[in-house]
Amino acid sequence: MTLTLTPLQGIPMVQSGDDLSAFIAEAMARAGLELQSGDIFVLAQKIVSKAEGRLIHLSQVTPSDKALELAKESQKDGRLVELILQESREVVRTRPGLIVVEHRLGFVSANAGIDHSNVMANGGDAVLLLPIDPDASAEALRTKLEVATGQNIGVLIIDSHGRAWRFGTVGVTIGVANVPSVLDLRGQPDLFGNELMATEVGVADELAAAASLIMGQADEGIPVVHVRGFPYELEAGAMDELLRPKQGDLFR
Amino acid sequence: MTLTLTPLQGIPMVQSGDDLSAFIAEAMARAGLELQSGDIFVLAQKIVSKAEGRLIHLSQVTPSDKALELAKESQKDGRLVELILQESREVVRTRPGLIVVEHRLGFVSANAGIDHSNVMANGGDAVLLLPIDPDASAEALRTKLEVATGQNIGVLIIDSHGRAWRFGTVGVTIGVANVPSVLDLRGQPDLFGNELMATEVGVADELAAAASLIMGQADEGIPVVHVRGFPYELEAGAMDELLRPKQGDLFR
Repeated sequence: MTLTLTPLQGIPMVQSGDDLSAFIAEAMARAGLELQSGDIFVLAQKIVSKAEGRLIHLSQVTPSDKALELAKESQKDGRLVELILQESREVVRTRPGLIVVEHRLGFVSANAGIDHSNVMANGGDAVLLLPIDPDASAEALRTKLEVATGQNIGVLIIDSHGRAWRFGTVGVTIGVANVPSVLDLRGQPDLFGNELMATEVGVADELAAAASLIMGQADEGIPVVHVRGFPYELEAGAMDELLRPKQGDLFR
Repeated sequence: MTLTLTPLQGIPMVQSGDDLSAFIAEAMARAGLELQSGDIFVLAQKIVSKAEGRLIHLSQVTPSDKALELAKESQKDGRLVELILQESREVVRTRPGLIVVEHRLGFVSANAGIDHSNVMANGGDAVLLLPIDPDASAEALRTKLEVATGQNIGVLIIDSHGRAWRFGTVGVTIGVANVPSVLDLRGQPDLFGNELMATEVGVADELAAAASLIMGQADEGIPVVHVRGFPYELEAGAMDELLRPKQGDLFR
């Protein structure tokens, strides 16, 4: 019944084209861990994006007029704002230092999840976009690990998001393979047999937050966490099950 | 470096006046776990509220005119709405089935966190309010456990909240003692020595989500989780450090 999260040490700096499944297998061996059915790997978005070559140099970006206007309003680099707009469906809020968007992947996030920490030495001009299709990235990695080991495992790709109302970023799911995203416990009896009315639990996001806690955010460099003891059956999930459709969202 | 979360089995049904520290000590012994400095206990709000006698019978509540009006709009029981209003600073949004408020404790939540699952046998008319002062509840429990064991431990009290933009509830902190709430990693170098710009991490909420994952939501009845391997020093935290002041909140 115990949930165990183990940071995998010694994952090397990831380059475009790298095979993350090989890095993970090596790190598991180093940690003396043997893969079991039901295990889950949680990956920081950053290494998936790097492996997929999502690094962009700002010097190669030409901002549109719209980007330049929004750059003034948000006091950000116009080229960065151009990338934020390209990666987004719409701008939700702006203030100095912050652009909140609906990302093309559907979630609401600051700056379209575009990252410029831990991206390059010498503080260069590179930024990192999110993976093109994180669910597909997770599934590709899951398949490779399953083929290599014969075990039924899950994969989660996570990022850190700010929240409405509450301070502090928390880990959230941006890609998922073979992990349930939301479990609907409606209709299951509570302790006294009364029917529960509405309990849709964002279990993938709860796991994302747990893994984020031990990844750290700065120079620890632990981009993969091994999870054992996830308390539900592994089954197909999709990131967009965790998203509230815009029409039903009271807070945009 | 491993984070381990163990659900404590066999905690009895809690009654008003019960000593939770005794239940926890017994459950630790049953699980064969010995308390160590740095350990954290995460408690579901429900058992803290029950121990503090926060059960209210709707038959003893008389709704105000304002409550009756809001009851019509939200299609809820007027007496329940009266309690929601009494427990809140202001109503943030309403729609049928849902009243989102700023709770008197400062956080934004649905229905003021008032719970009527797992509260009484026979589907009675009882509902459960949140603890009067969850930080104080956490600190009182922490002190008792420290006196009993001589170990430096932390205590978190959590609830499940819905979120703007994302589906599915997740565990969040509503009370904290000797656990950092938000860690400000700004200014720590990233992997390449570049200064990180803004990384305030809601570590207590990440831990709350992790514990919530293994508590389950329905009839599992696991209201206390033992945590070992929290990756930061235990230090004073307060729940309201996790709250975004209303003035700076773009999403109300």
